[in-house]
Amino acid sequence: MRAGGALTTSTLVNGVPGDTVSVDERALHYGDGLFETMRCRDGQVRWLDLHLARLARGCERLGIAMPDRDQLRRELAQLVQGQQRCLLKLIVTRGVATGRGYRPSGAEQPTRILRRYAWPPAPAADYRVHHSPIRLGRNVALAGIKHLNRLEQVLAQQVAARAGVDEALQSTESGQLVAGTMSNVFLVDDNRWLTPPIIDCGVGGITRTLVLQHAAALGIEVREQPLTSADALATPAIVLSNVRLGLQAVHWYEGRRLSVPASMTRLWEAIDGAAD
Amino acid sequence: MRAGGALTTSTLVNGVPGDTVSVDERALHYGDGLFETMRCRDGQVRWLDLHLARLARGCERLGIAMPDRDQLRRELAQLVQGQQRCLLKLIVTRGVATGRGYRPSGAEQPTRILRRYAWPPAPAADYRVHHSPIRLGRNVALAGIKHLNRLEQVLAQQVAARAGVDEALQSTESGQLVAGTMSNVFLVDDNRWLTPPIIDCGVGGITRTLVLQHAAALGIEVREQPLTSADALATPAIVLSNVRLGLQAVHWYEGRRLSVPASMTRLWEAIDGAAD
Repeated sequence: MRAGGALTTSTLVNGVPGDTVSVDERALHYGDGLFETMRCRDGQVRWLDLHLARLARGCERLGIAMPDRDQLRRELAQLVQGQQRCLLKLIVTRGVATGRGYRPSGAEQPTRILRRYAWPPAPAADYRVHHSPIRLGRNVALAGIKHLNRLEQVLAQQVAARAGVDEALQSTESGQLVAGTMSNVFLVDDNRWLTPPIIDCGVGGITRTLVLQHAAALGIEVREQPLTSADALATPAIVLSNVRLGLQAVHWYEGRRLSVPASMTRLWEAIDGAAD
Repeated sequence: MRAGGALTTSTLVNGVPGDTVSVDERALHYGDGLFETMRCRDGQVRWLDLHLARLARGCERLGIAMPDRDQLRRELAQLVQGQQRCLLKLIVTRGVATGRGYRPSGAEQPTRILRRYAWPPAPAADYRVHHSPIRLGRNVALAGIKHLNRLEQVLAQQVAARAGVDEALQSTESGQLVAGTMSNVFLVDDNRWLTPPIIDCGVGGITRTLVLQHAAALGIEVREQPLTSADALATPAIVLSNVRLGLQAVHWYEGRRLSVPASMTRLWEAIDGAAD
């Protein structure tokens, strides 16, 4: 517990209650690590296997040793125990630097930071989104994984705050639509859902994966295909996904009122109702 | 001082000796901050005005309040005092999060982390560089400033280590040459130096600025112009620049022996010999 903090939190650093990390943490110097934000209910972490699988993919990509899964499960269970509803954030970094400079020595020991947050207030009843002037750089080496280099999202949310909107859609400099600032994006026309492939940009979201898994059984067609910011301006409905919001309809986009697709509620009920 | 650490260091966090930061540091979660690496000799920081000017530009770009310059100067002086030769690293972050999520509240207080490192060993006498398979994403919102989102450099140095080279040149996915992994790059042919403009990629280096300032007086033509990775394969000489290495000739690039340009030594002597 940090004194004076406004957050209702509980934190484990490498399994031990604590609220600080070393100034030599490579995550602090370079954003050299990964994170997962997890939805928790009735003392359980939802979709934990999917989170751990993505974390493992990220560790492999960055050349960080994946922490022991059983140990992670135990630590998560410790923080979520007795909680009716909360968010957990897990950060796994390459660890404390053993020397100066970008190049890892290979002798670093990964750091686990596990942080519990109170379940956030419900999103705005009128969820407003604009198109961000902050573009996303394309990098196939970083796409898909949930790494800690998030300035593009921070800047986009800063601009969104000034514009009085809840979130922003972001595209590449060439106008390829990628994602919401804190979500994946679906352009929806009735039972047809389109989402950009995650190839050289963006995060492969857990809820996005669940949408792709559950849609077909409900007669909803979800297709990954390249989309542009012009497509977002023309679609009758936009749905955003992340583990906190679940499926979130966009009510207002760039001055235009959007519809809430009936398929969204059905899809979310199927995802939320299914066993992990 | 961290027990057991291999680094010879001394550290101030917000002006106070310390070796930890809060787990809620936004730099840890998002890389939400900036840094400067400074060359120090005989108790003085070289080119401090240029460092502070770049830091201020970065703060403005990210919407972080620039720390008081006099305070920074006092803290830097405290760490560099009595040091014959060292490096100082200053990290300025947006501060400890006042809530969850990417969006800054605007109520954050910037954190100053100032860290002294022993002067590093001399670079390899045979400085070997390859072309990195890790590309740089283009983002005009982040180009030029020395922000903390450095995974592209970390990954490139990791690959370089496996390849047994000292550093890598990095380009965009479309093959535009940008920089060395920890330096700016000049393709040199006798008295003609070419360097890529820093528009949508890369850091505007202090030593690069000094090269541009001092060259003309020595009859060396330095020009900013778009360059490709093919240009790097064809040039007779490559020079890298940063405040640690100064001007560093590349002796070996992608299997080819390169010459050390005579103009390099003259230029470095002019830069190093001039008053700040």
